[in-house]
Amino acid sequence: MEEIRIAILGHRFMGRAHSNAWLQAPRFFDLPYKPVLQVACGRDTDSLQAFADRWGWAEIETDWRKLLERDDIDAIDIALPTHLHAETAIAAAEAGKHIFCEKPFCNSTAEAEAILAAAEKAGVVHYLNHNYRRCPAVTLAKKLIDEGEIGEIYHWRGAYQQSWLTNAEYPVDWKLKKATAGAGPLWDLGSHAVDLAHYLVGDFKEISCRGKQFISERPLASDPSQMGEVEVECAALMTGEFQNGALATIETTRYATGQKNRHTFEIYGSKGSMTWDMQDMNRLQFYSTSDAEHASGFRDILVTERCHEYVNAWWPPGHIIGYEHGFVHAAVDFLQAIKDGKGITPDFHDGVRIMKVLDAALESMDGSGGPIAIS
Amino acid sequence: MEEIRIAILGHRFMGRAHSNAWLQAPRFFDLPYKPVLQVACGRDTDSLQAFADRWGWAEIETDWRKLLERDDIDAIDIALPTHLHAETAIAAAEAGKHIFCEKPFCNSTAEAEAILAAAEKAGVVHYLNHNYRRCPAVTLAKKLIDEGEIGEIYHWRGAYQQSWLTNAEYPVDWKLKKATAGAGPLWDLGSHAVDLAHYLVGDFKEISCRGKQFISERPLASDPSQMGEVEVECAALMTGEFQNGALATIETTRYATGQKNRHTFEIYGSKGSMTWDMQDMNRLQFYSTSDAEHASGFRDILVTERCHEYVNAWWPPGHIIGYEHGFVHAAVDFLQAIKDGKGITPDFHDGVRIMKVLDAALESMDGSGGPIAIS
Amino acid sequence: MEEIRIAILGHRFMGRAHSNAWLQAPRFFDLPYKPVLQVACGRDTDSLQAFADRWGWAEIETDWRKLLERDDIDAIDIALPTHLHAETAIAAAEAGKHIFCEKPFCNSTAEAEAILAAAEKAGVVHYLNHNYRRCPAVTLAKKLIDEGEIGEIYHWRGAYQQSWLTNAEYPVDWKLKKATAGAGPLWDLGSHAVDLAHYLVGDFKEISCRGKQFISERPLASDPSQMGEVEVECAALMTGEFQNGALATIETTRYATGQKNRHTFEIYGSKGSMTWDMQDMNRLQFYSTSDAEHASGFRDILVTERCHEYVNAWWPPGHIIGYEHGFVHAAVDFLQAIKDGKGITPDFHDGVRIMKVLDAALESMDGSGGPIAIS
Amino acid sequence: MEEIRIAILGHRFMGRAHSNAWLQAPRFFDLPYKPVLQVACGRDTDSLQAFADRWGWAEIETDWRKLLERDDIDAIDIALPTHLHAETAIAAAEAGKHIFCEKPFCNSTAEAEAILAAAEKAGVVHYLNHNYRRCPAVTLAKKLIDEGEIGEIYHWRGAYQQSWLTNAEYPVDWKLKKATAGAGPLWDLGSHAVDLAHYLVGDFKEISCRGKQFISERPLASDPSQMGEVEVECAALMTGEFQNGALATIETTRYATGQKNRHTFEIYGSKGSMTWDMQDMNRLQFYSTSDAEHASGFRDILVTERCHEYVNAWWPPGHIIGYEHGFVHAAVDFLQAIKDGKGITPDFHDGVRIMKVLDAALESMDGSGGPIAIS
Repeated sequence: MEEIRIAILGHRFMGRAHSNAWLQAPRFFDLPYKPVLQVACGRDTDSLQAFADRWGWAEIETDWRKLLERDDIDAIDIALPTHLHAETAIAAAEAGKHIFCEKPFCNSTAEAEAILAAAEKAGVVHYLNHNYRRCPAVTLAKKLIDEGEIGEIYHWRGAYQQSWLTNAEYPVDWKLKKATAGAGPLWDLGSHAVDLAHYLVGDFKEISCRGKQFISERPLASDPSQMGEVEVECAALMTGEFQNGALATIETTRYATGQKNRHTFEIYGSKGSMTWDMQDMNRLQFYSTSDAEHASGFRDILVTERCHEYVNAWWPPGHIIGYEHGFVHAAVDFLQAIKDGKGITPDFHDGVRIMKVLDAALESMDGSGGPIAIS
Repeated sequence: MEEIRIAILGHRFMGRAHSNAWLQAPRFFDLPYKPVLQVACGRDTDSLQAFADRWGWAEIETDWRKLLERDDIDAIDIALPTHLHAETAIAAAEAGKHIFCEKPFCNSTAEAEAILAAAEKAGVVHYLNHNYRRCPAVTLAKKLIDEGEIGEIYHWRGAYQQSWLTNAEYPVDWKLKKATAGAGPLWDLGSHAVDLAHYLVGDFKEISCRGKQFISERPLASDPSQMGEVEVECAALMTGEFQNGALATIETTRYATGQKNRHTFEIYGSKGSMTWDMQDMNRLQFYSTSDAEHASGFRDILVTERCHEYVNAWWPPGHIIGYEHGFVHAAVDFLQAIKDGKGITPDFHDGVRIMKVLDAALESMDGSGGPIAIS
Repeated sequence: MEEIRIAILGHRFMGRAHSNAWLQAPRFFDLPYKPVLQVACGRDTDSLQAFADRWGWAEIETDWRKLLERDDIDAIDIALPTHLHAETAIAAAEAGKHIFCEKPFCNSTAEAEAILAAAEKAGVVHYLNHNYRRCPAVTLAKKLIDEGEIGEIYHWRGAYQQSWLTNAEYPVDWKLKKATAGAGPLWDLGSHAVDLAHYLVGDFKEISCRGKQFISERPLASDPSQMGEVEVECAALMTGEFQNGALATIETTRYATGQKNRHTFEIYGSKGSMTWDMQDMNRLQFYSTSDAEHASGFRDILVTERCHEYVNAWWPPGHIIGYEHGFVHAAVDFLQAIKDGKGITPDFHDGVRIMKVLDAALESMDGSGGPIAIS
Repeated sequence: MEEIRIAILGHRFMGRAHSNAWLQAPRFFDLPYKPVLQVACGRDTDSLQAFADRWGWAEIETDWRKLLERDDIDAIDIALPTHLHAETAIAAAEAGKHIFCEKPFCNSTAEAEAILAAAEKAGVVHYLNHNYRRCPAVTLAKKLIDEGEIGEIYHWRGAYQQSWLTNAEYPVDWKLKKATAGAGPLWDLGSHAVDLAHYLVGDFKEISCRGKQFISERPLASDPSQMGEVEVECAALMTGEFQNGALATIETTRYATGQKNRHTFEIYGSKGSMTWDMQDMNRLQFYSTSDAEHASGFRDILVTERCHEYVNAWWPPGHIIGYEHGFVHAAVDFLQAIKDGKGITPDFHDGVRIMKVLDAALESMDGSGGPIAIS
């Protein structure tokens, strides 16, 4: 079988999740190419070698630019911190490499457009890893919408809630600094939430945002006896309107005590409704107005049947899958996109769409708090 | 409007619940008769008078036999402890009074048959108050079965779980003595569970039962420094088979820590399934095999729509009702049965059916533990 | 026992709910006064008399002003449409009557302040019927907050969602006209949501609002062959900040298909969290950071224990209550407030607070969409 | 790192699940040995080679006895149909190989004891793959019991419900024949359910069982135009008592329409309670009597915190895992057991315990239906 040789940039949390995806994809799915874990790239040689050994990357490399010069690398997997995406993605595109890029896409609309332009010019396959789209329950939600089961959409009520910052001892790390993180939960969690809204409802017409700092000083990571400034918001509340007229609320926070990683949406339409929560990712709640009135209610669909997309490759009905499986599905579709010479979504076009919304939200949050039109 | 004049025997927990039913019924429902709260009957004059004053009973009486001689009493409401049901119900029937009788029906099949015979001979309306049948969600369950939505029934998985005996300080009261209580949860909770099974599935062919005492000695109610014997089982587990071939498990216990009053069933059939819990009594879960495979799941039906039986008389959709409303519905239907000259279910026939099952279960529990046929 | 003689204005949905409260309160609770249902007041004599007969009001009256001249009326129960509240409440106060007033309070902050001023000047007991405060689960939420179990509050995420306007056949009635309704769900549902936020979190510092019409023309109620204009919003999304620094989102809509009457909140604080939904009103979810880390999770509290406020008067643990019970609790507390010569909340002060928030939200919705300070 | 070289027998559903476990274990966990996927063994060379290629087994072999003669094989992974376990496991033990054996253990207590004796005599590590024990939520349940949080256990209410036989077209395959399957759901599902009961509560004193056939003839797999006999029960209901006095119900069925793979238990004890369902395997519900009375309720624990066993190796809090992860945890612990020279549970001792209970249940089901003592 023909191979697609991959080089990965980054070897922390997302380095693990991506490596696992490349390894699991060919076990459970029939692929058009054999993915080869060729090079792991990073700066700290020791930890990089340990990573490569553990995950089966054939080589290590500390200078990512060298990878781009190699003919035996077909795809670049960018699993780096956000502020390093633009430079690496543009160079990879210019070198003609297919790109599998972790989210958030980048730190501004301008950056996003530059990355997209480079990828489009090069004609490579480009994928932005908003993995939640490939949870089978979310894929089913999209299918139900496309089949007309929801009708005209009135409401998107979304939230992405975490709680790790309620710990006042948590230090000022890179996630709480503007230069490295861009923004707080608006960026980190909001990019996921906005992508799902794009996927399931469509483009935004305008957005408003209200942010807040609950704890503005925290111990320095370097010296916990000293306090440093938290530069980003602790929570951000968006409301908006889609181009198709639906309304949206999107709440993002790191201060929702008791919510570990609740990424949830409610969609209400003229013919039906749906709700979902990432923490119970194998289930989709679906209400249909076509049910008999006396027997209508939200159906609790366990999305593990053979007819559900991606599911057949795993286990029998009723056997659930977990967080990392969405990454595997993305790897599968990415390889298929290369084979087909077609695109895959979400891609860098979607990245630009997301950044426009987040930039507008940031403008609203830092400014009047009123609505900002999305161009 | 013509009146139905009622005399109530008993003025404790069930006296309150029944009085409330007679008072609420004419407010919320259009009735064929005006129910008149004529006489409250009991032995302790002081507490009886207080009860009558509070609930609006026009008179009090300490000798229940005198009530039966009066022409101005149309119906007897028996809200007494179980072991007093047979004598009072038979006499009431012989006096030509309609009978609204609290459950459990009585303490043996023989008693049950005698009560039924007297009521049938007298031609009075007789009702046995298994109130759960008139929770709108349970009524809906019956409707779905009758409409064929469940198909052939395979499984009844029921439980009635309480937890008040986990408190080791609870004394040996009348509920823990055979002479007064007949049995433990098998009688008290099992009668409800068996009635629901009869209502929704049908008659039993055979039953097996396993009981157990977890705490066999408790403080005497009269003198907590002394210990007395617990005479009844602490928990009873039944399995059985219905005449239509469905299987049943029914679990009754007073030792289910954390379950305050969980009366629940699961029904599985060839075309659909349902689950219900009294603690969330306004909801019914319904699974239909006629839903599209990719969109099938248990529907969480909030049974508060105008199309749901009894519901329209109360509040708008989405506004729930509570425990006592089932009693009100029973009062409504009891008055209508008098008007129509027809029966109402559950009645004393159902009481006999239930007692046969419970007697058989008791025989199995006290004997071999194997199946006992239901005659 | 001393009596409090009540005259009720209005005899529709709320007339029923209030009458029921006055009737049930003395049955289940020990009261300081006997409430007497003295006069029912309305304009349509026939339906009024039928109402009085059904609910036991001793007299009927078509001129509410005459009631105020009578010495034998102690309290006025205002169950009229919102736009009639100001005139009747002010006159009742001036006549020295205690006032039990249905929500929404009125149609503007100016009206609200005038009503409050009249009531305060007269020294009467005044109560505004945001009944949800007296669901035992909500009362428990308040208790947990007051005991410090939630700590500093970061987030209020509320919604009041109904779905009856998704039916395009629904006509343009008084609820969809500005003159009579003031606003759409912002007023009708938002007043409840804001009151709960006030009760559990405190006063707002500022509010933003985004509204939307999904269907702007509907059949005329008078002539369904003609179309008329919907004058109020179909949905309104608020975000805001409390004076104590907490953030709020409040979503109100009549287009949430599948949600019959979902009034829900999530509260996140530094020590704990809570969630609640009116459709499951007997339950409160509570997360405590004081639980052991490996055993922490939202507790699903069934608020039916004897230790829970109001609950002991009803049924044993595990037996739930319904929508109307909150009204009964309000009647109980209103009579006690008269006895004690003290206030009861929510009162007309709370009405003013709510109207200020709703007026600001309306200003934001109709204007820039940005934040409006609450005075 | 030292290696443990594995040969696997079988390459269907369980062959995949086991292979995945050996591959994933070293990626996510720090292991004492490197597991080497040395030989895949089966009869159909073509499909076996395809399996080996896909999962990375270095060699294939069609004669399992030859594997046992090789010095370079350390462990035998038995992923064969149940009736082939005894012969292969005994031979593997006699050859001194460590054994990782899929469930159900075998088809009789006699077989079970022979396998155990061989393994004990050989001194090899033996593991029986009841994978549910290593779902982190179940492991947490065990920990809470061991810490005394549940107190004395009163009740085990378990069920393992599937629905695939409600399809009348399903043919008579090996699972419905006694010679190959031993029994129906009692064996296949009941073995899992009994193992969990053993793990969390302890040994049984006696068991009763009632079985039933709902559909007794089905199309032949070989020729669907012909009907064949279903030889095993369609559902089996057990009740029993543990040696520590707790009661048990265990319901197993393949006819629970709507339940895809619901493996659930409820445990009630003197100090607390727990419930769990495999379909929501990342959650455990826990009720503690040590909570304040007004704030007590079942805690919905999302078992994804770093403090939860096995979890730290995977993803951050709130990111769930799936069905196959329990197999990975078993692989990890199996390798550690080899290193430590200690046992691992469940092992073949547990297999004997389970078979004794299932044999007794079968005897009860086929006989009187009454209780059978467990030796």
